[in-house]
Amino acid sequence: MTTTTSDGAQAELLGRYLTSQALTEELAGTVSAEDQMMQSMPDASPTKWHRAHTAWFFETFLLIPHLVDYEEFHPAFGYLFNSYYEGVGERHPRAQRGLISRPGAEEVGAYRRHVRQGMERLMETPLDSGSLALVELGIHHEQQHQELLLMDIKHAFAQNPLRPAYRPRTAGHLDRPTAVKTGEGSRSSAGTETAWTGYPGGIVSIGHDGEGFSFDNEGPRHRVVVEPYALTRRLATNGDWLSFIEDGGYRQPNIWLSEGWATVRQHDWTAPLYWQPSGDGWQEFTLHGLEAVDPDRPVCHVSYFEADAFARWAGCRLPTEAEWELAAADQAVTGHFLDLDRLHPDSFMSAPPGDGATPSEDPVPSLFGDVWQWTSSTYSPYPGFAPAEGAVGEYNGKFMVNQYVLRGGCCVTPPGHVRATYRNFFPAASRWMFSGLRLARTL
Amino acid sequence: MTTTTSDGAQAELLGRYLTSQALTEELAGTVSAEDQMMQSMPDASPTKWHRAHTAWFFETFLLIPHLVDYEEFHPAFGYLFNSYYEGVGERHPRAQRGLISRPGAEEVGAYRRHVRQGMERLMETPLDSGSLALVELGIHHEQQHQELLLMDIKHAFAQNPLRPAYRPRTAGHLDRPTAVKTGEGSRSSAGTETAWTGYPGGIVSIGHDGEGFSFDNEGPRHRVVVEPYALTRRLATNGDWLSFIEDGGYRQPNIWLSEGWATVRQHDWTAPLYWQPSGDGWQEFTLHGLEAVDPDRPVCHVSYFEADAFARWAGCRLPTEAEWELAAADQAVTGHFLDLDRLHPDSFMSAPPGDGATPSEDPVPSLFGDVWQWTSSTYSPYPGFAPAEGAVGEYNGKFMVNQYVLRGGCCVTPPGHVRATYRNFFPAASRWMFSGLRLARTL
Amino acid sequence: MTTTTSDGAQAELLGRYLTSQALTEELAGTVSAEDQMMQSMPDASPTKWHRAHTAWFFETFLLIPHLVDYEEFHPAFGYLFNSYYEGVGERHPRAQRGLISRPGAEEVGAYRRHVRQGMERLMETPLDSGSLALVELGIHHEQQHQELLLMDIKHAFAQNPLRPAYRPRTAGHLDRPTAVKTGEGSRSSAGTETAWTGYPGGIVSIGHDGEGFSFDNEGPRHRVVVEPYALTRRLATNGDWLSFIEDGGYRQPNIWLSEGWATVRQHDWTAPLYWQPSGDGWQEFTLHGLEAVDPDRPVCHVSYFEADAFARWAGCRLPTEAEWELAAADQAVTGHFLDLDRLHPDSFMSAPPGDGATPSEDPVPSLFGDVWQWTSSTYSPYPGFAPAEGAVGEYNGKFMVNQYVLRGGCCVTPPGHVRATYRNFFPAASRWMFSGLRLARTL
Amino acid sequence: MTTTTSDGAQAELLGRYLTSQALTEELAGTVSAEDQMMQSMPDASPTKWHRAHTAWFFETFLLIPHLVDYEEFHPAFGYLFNSYYEGVGERHPRAQRGLISRPGAEEVGAYRRHVRQGMERLMETPLDSGSLALVELGIHHEQQHQELLLMDIKHAFAQNPLRPAYRPRTAGHLDRPTAVKTGEGSRSSAGTETAWTGYPGGIVSIGHDGEGFSFDNEGPRHRVVVEPYALTRRLATNGDWLSFIEDGGYRQPNIWLSEGWATVRQHDWTAPLYWQPSGDGWQEFTLHGLEAVDPDRPVCHVSYFEADAFARWAGCRLPTEAEWELAAADQAVTGHFLDLDRLHPDSFMSAPPGDGATPSEDPVPSLFGDVWQWTSSTYSPYPGFAPAEGAVGEYNGKFMVNQYVLRGGCCVTPPGHVRATYRNFFPAASRWMFSGLRLARTL
Repeated sequence: MTTTTSDGAQAELLGRYLTSQALTEELAGTVSAEDQMMQSMPDASPTKWHRAHTAWFFETFLLIPHLVDYEEFHPAFGYLFNSYYEGVGERHPRAQRGLISRPGAEEVGAYRRHVRQGMERLMETPLDSGSLALVELGIHHEQQHQELLLMDIKHAFAQNPLRPAYRPRTAGHLDRPTAVKTGEGSRSSAGTETAWTGYPGGIVSIGHDGEGFSFDNEGPRHRVVVEPYALTRRLATNGDWLSFIEDGGYRQPNIWLSEGWATVRQHDWTAPLYWQPSGDGWQEFTLHGLEAVDPDRPVCHVSYFEADAFARWAGCRLPTEAEWELAAADQAVTGHFLDLDRLHPDSFMSAPPGDGATPSEDPVPSLFGDVWQWTSSTYSPYPGFAPAEGAVGEYNGKFMVNQYVLRGGCCVTPPGHVRATYRNFFPAASRWMFSGLRLARTL
Repeated sequence: MTTTTSDGAQAELLGRYLTSQALTEELAGTVSAEDQMMQSMPDASPTKWHRAHTAWFFETFLLIPHLVDYEEFHPAFGYLFNSYYEGVGERHPRAQRGLISRPGAEEVGAYRRHVRQGMERLMETPLDSGSLALVELGIHHEQQHQELLLMDIKHAFAQNPLRPAYRPRTAGHLDRPTAVKTGEGSRSSAGTETAWTGYPGGIVSIGHDGEGFSFDNEGPRHRVVVEPYALTRRLATNGDWLSFIEDGGYRQPNIWLSEGWATVRQHDWTAPLYWQPSGDGWQEFTLHGLEAVDPDRPVCHVSYFEADAFARWAGCRLPTEAEWELAAADQAVTGHFLDLDRLHPDSFMSAPPGDGATPSEDPVPSLFGDVWQWTSSTYSPYPGFAPAEGAVGEYNGKFMVNQYVLRGGCCVTPPGHVRATYRNFFPAASRWMFSGLRLARTL
Repeated sequence: MTTTTSDGAQAELLGRYLTSQALTEELAGTVSAEDQMMQSMPDASPTKWHRAHTAWFFETFLLIPHLVDYEEFHPAFGYLFNSYYEGVGERHPRAQRGLISRPGAEEVGAYRRHVRQGMERLMETPLDSGSLALVELGIHHEQQHQELLLMDIKHAFAQNPLRPAYRPRTAGHLDRPTAVKTGEGSRSSAGTETAWTGYPGGIVSIGHDGEGFSFDNEGPRHRVVVEPYALTRRLATNGDWLSFIEDGGYRQPNIWLSEGWATVRQHDWTAPLYWQPSGDGWQEFTLHGLEAVDPDRPVCHVSYFEADAFARWAGCRLPTEAEWELAAADQAVTGHFLDLDRLHPDSFMSAPPGDGATPSEDPVPSLFGDVWQWTSSTYSPYPGFAPAEGAVGEYNGKFMVNQYVLRGGCCVTPPGHVRATYRNFFPAASRWMFSGLRLARTL
Repeated sequence: MTTTTSDGAQAELLGRYLTSQALTEELAGTVSAEDQMMQSMPDASPTKWHRAHTAWFFETFLLIPHLVDYEEFHPAFGYLFNSYYEGVGERHPRAQRGLISRPGAEEVGAYRRHVRQGMERLMETPLDSGSLALVELGIHHEQQHQELLLMDIKHAFAQNPLRPAYRPRTAGHLDRPTAVKTGEGSRSSAGTETAWTGYPGGIVSIGHDGEGFSFDNEGPRHRVVVEPYALTRRLATNGDWLSFIEDGGYRQPNIWLSEGWATVRQHDWTAPLYWQPSGDGWQEFTLHGLEAVDPDRPVCHVSYFEADAFARWAGCRLPTEAEWELAAADQAVTGHFLDLDRLHPDSFMSAPPGDGATPSEDPVPSLFGDVWQWTSSTYSPYPGFAPAEGAVGEYNGKFMVNQYVLRGGCCVTPPGHVRATYRNFFPAASRWMFSGLRLARTL
């Protein structure tokens, strides 16, 4: 991690910190104090906890060690809002975060203001580069939790038989189809000839080179061998997935990894998470409420196991993270992120011409946004990887086992958060994140 | 169940209904909307759910079938707030009651007002005896949930490391000791000679005779054989329990039922629920917050397994429910109930003389109040028992397996709720209710 | 427990001990050493373990304390073959009994011989009454394990898709029907008018009076009130059960106890244990292999939950243990026990006239044999019950929780083992014992 | 997979087949029929099942499809002894393999002879290359199960408090120390300066090139980038591990992967599997029975989590599989395998000079034998990997998720089974295989 040190840079950093603080509060502000309590599974956390934990990060790693006369807001918050930093001490059991009615949402707001004021005070004086790097890290950490907050509240609302919307669609949103019938699904997108872009590969370098911010897991930059390959120009769509379902994709053991098939049978998976059958087709639960499954939208909320089986069914494979990064390396990081305020992947096939995302215009359409794309790469340390010193060194390295890398960011990722080298990761059975895929094949 | 039918009786019933409604809201009003969300274990329910479910009872069994032009408040509430009535249809999974952020506490308040207004309208016209019986049943049902509400919120708060109090003690409360040291504990009460009251037994009748309200499980009245026996004049105290602990009570398998011993080892029980070691003794978590364990208070929050082992350790046994009822049959139902607003059992040993509860004055001190008393009787149907017709017939009978009877009511039981014939029941391992014991022996 | 003390009595006791030893070995001799290894669930034990444990009882409670110069067969067997006696020391985890390949079946045979020789030596000299009582208890203990051995090996064989028979039917066995079609099932027995026998009840005494051997849980004899009642003259049959199934018995929650219904759904129960659908009807797995379900046989392998639901469906109830004992008190203990060598309940409806079991001949047909009959009584201590002193006091008392009493013995109970006062007990969900029922109603 | 096709080659293949058959029976012959029944965890299988399953492979993939007039031995064996081939049909639940007392060990022997005779008959006539490849695969498959058989019986015996030995040490075995004291442990090996061998790396090729037999997962051969690195010349020893334990290795979360630390706490791991404290040090359970932990032996039965934490504690890392393969590529595959009949890793530090394994003689000691060596590489398909056609295509590919690669073979691996390109794989928490490690570092 590197950071700038001039006064202007520090002011700019403070500005970004404040913007990020405000965004978290705005995202949480959409829901009630009661909504902010819910923890619908051990992997997820209550909205309120995300708010408190992101403030705790700044309090723990910056204010308590570095701000003269700083008064801790509450002696128990260090215990309550530590996520997983063993180096910082004991912490509240993860699965019980939903039983913390107190502090309430309002008190958490006060905590956040207290920390923010502390941070403003701290940043009035010049900070050394280590501290500045921690502020930078804290901002990126908070961005991650902004996405988690939306994933988690979606999962919680999905448990409520009333299927409440996090936020209704606004006028600016693209029109949605009101119904799609089973059997018709695949026409619009899957009927389209899938277009591929080829890449020559070679002895290439991937990983972050250290210019500007990155997480420790993105480096060091290192050489890899990549054989010639191709990627599909578009993401796999709901239409593709309907074809997969109709072809018995969830009932054929031979296209699944053994553990994947066991998972399918254990949970009776028959479709992506949040899909539910309705009278004449499928609906999917979104942050905007229940909507008809649009065949032209990228498929979303599929596990690694499903993405892998789908690729095998299609006679292709998932890309490696090197293949993906190589294709994305020279691209501008543009696409459908959280700032567009459409909290679900877009129906890009029907995008109006001339909006800049039209496939026909670019030789390589953007690889970023809409849905995180599963790769076939396990989340492993790059050659020469070393975690940061101290408690923040627990940030990434210790999760490098039994997880898979996803790339590209999604429609609920804060803009500016991802890069071509950015490595997201989840276990192979997880599907509550906005995860989809893009196919690959060897040339 | 019988009920009166005159106009005055109907007005009186309406009055009691309204009083009961108000008490539920008052009990819930002490805590925040967020507090009302918590479900800390599948056996417990959120405060908000208790509020909605008790209104649902009146809506489902009275308003929908009997009130002309009644508009259901919300079509999904019948699903969300049904507890266990199979006859009424599907219901929300019990373990997920804590994930219902919507309806919020405020909307539940509106629901309750809507139902109350419906009930007021319904009761403007004369009701037949069946409907009146259902109103009566609904009131008693709500009283049960008032106690459950307090048990459940206590359990939920106990999961919070901040140990928040439901309500602070008020000035009128008896003074509390601020500390008790391990090893000193047993002096005040256990050092006292335990006084016994003998009863002749005989061929006697127990069970409700049908005069006035009772639950179906209290009847029919029937004959039983009871041999001469004695009960202790006082409840087992914390002081007694400290002696039990210090004597290795939780470490000696031979005084436990086999399943009880397995439970002790599985959960590492070393004291009653809510006890925690502090620097120089034990503290217990109460609805008034953490307090020192007072040796003169009745022991509370012990399971059947513990009560049974304690009795065996003491060389005694638990009373049968017939023995308890026989002793209580002629007593006035007075004691420490919810109206005293002391939400924890009282230190009766230090009660000032002349307050009417002094042991020395009465030949038999009151058997009611403070803590529910475990009996050795399994919760079985009395000879000739038949559940009520229709869905309300699911009220009691279907739980008559693998549970034990407790008698006498407790400090959070609404006044007027219990009777000498009243049968409360819980599984042998449960201990989040206010449960204690009184020893018995055969003469 | 009392016992005789004269020389003749001691010789007679030794004779019974030796007979019992031989029976255990004969029962085990039917199966292979490998068969004797199997433990198909934690509640069951391997054949070999039963053999060793019953010898362990004599070694532990008689030989080691009382036989001069006795050499323990193996120092680890005390640990391996203790069942649940906490007073005797640590023991091997129950669920891992199936992983003890060594000692092998042959070595266990040597162990049994070693103990038998010790017992013969011990009984050459006069024993005091306490020791004689322990020998008597050990014989009855072994008889219980003979029945368990057969229950357990049946359960183990049932897990094998080859469905091996423990022993083929012999020529002397009644002919079996070769097929029964669904829908026809209920004709023969259920079509028959159910005959009832009435009993006056009164203030009566039940429990063992101390004359001759009994287990401690059968006493003390004590008075109970029994209102006038009736019992069906015959056991519930498979034909009755087929009617229950066809009438949706396993799909109607309202006839089940709440916990029973949860159990039905959790395990997808649709018929008694060991029933399986075949082409045109039901088959049941027996110790003689797979057989067609004979509608005239008593139903077997049903849980308390099922028996209770069946009784409710039939508009009746289960008898209390007092009602059962009162009816059985004056009967000779005759019926279908293990000595008849038919290891499955008999089709008594089609019994040839004149065989002594014909319903029309006796005012009250035998209540004993064929299947253990569920009662509605929980397994609780009788008034005044006190367990025996020492480790054998763990024999019964500590299991008196969350179990129900069954009466009468069954087709795999050794003859002479049961009495009118005999109390067998199992949890409400168990069904691997030979359990059926007889209906009762209040007059 | 490729294979030769001449007559001589077919005869040689038959010879190897027969040798392999005999070895399996010899390994099983050491234990009793009862021993052969045990399944001590779902991951393990009974000895008897391994014997039947390896025969099933030849029956299913060669005899039934290719041998004229072949009569299947038993119609149910296809179901009972299929391991995981979905393409071949339903199969017996894995966790219930220990409940198959029938067929008994003897009948399984008959099954194996029946299949062997079929194979002999089949191989009298010339086979096409596809069939020959299946025979070859079947032999290698059986070799894998020979190792599994020993791993599994060791695990089963370890559950028996008598700790029976699979086979005593024979005279030819190296002498064992009779005791090692805690605190002294690390002297002999860990006190020795660890010697390293450096390797230049580069753009290199790994994977099997198709000459001779290999499993499908070993290819295709492909290029990778390997930076300069070093490996320790010896395996990590028990002495090293004692130092790790004494330094609090099992108590410091910061050296563990997050999931690894959770595993340590869940299972209370404090040492490798099969270690147990004895009076004055540690003992380990081996196939030769309990032995003192010898500090000079390679550490064995550690999980990936432990190997990874140990490497981090030592300031090093695990090698990648490319690094390991590169170092092993030019080595003769010699070392301590099953043919040496020492069923536990050897104390190589004290190996007598001149035996060919002395570290000081070779610049690079053998990388093969004694213990499988964990690598940091996840078990993923090599670029261009495609599983074989048909059911045998399920052999490897479908397990390529959430597993880690181990290299080199071990003391219970049949000789001739492994290669430099051989990839073994297990989940990160597994430790019942003979797994150890060799440290690596980047130069």
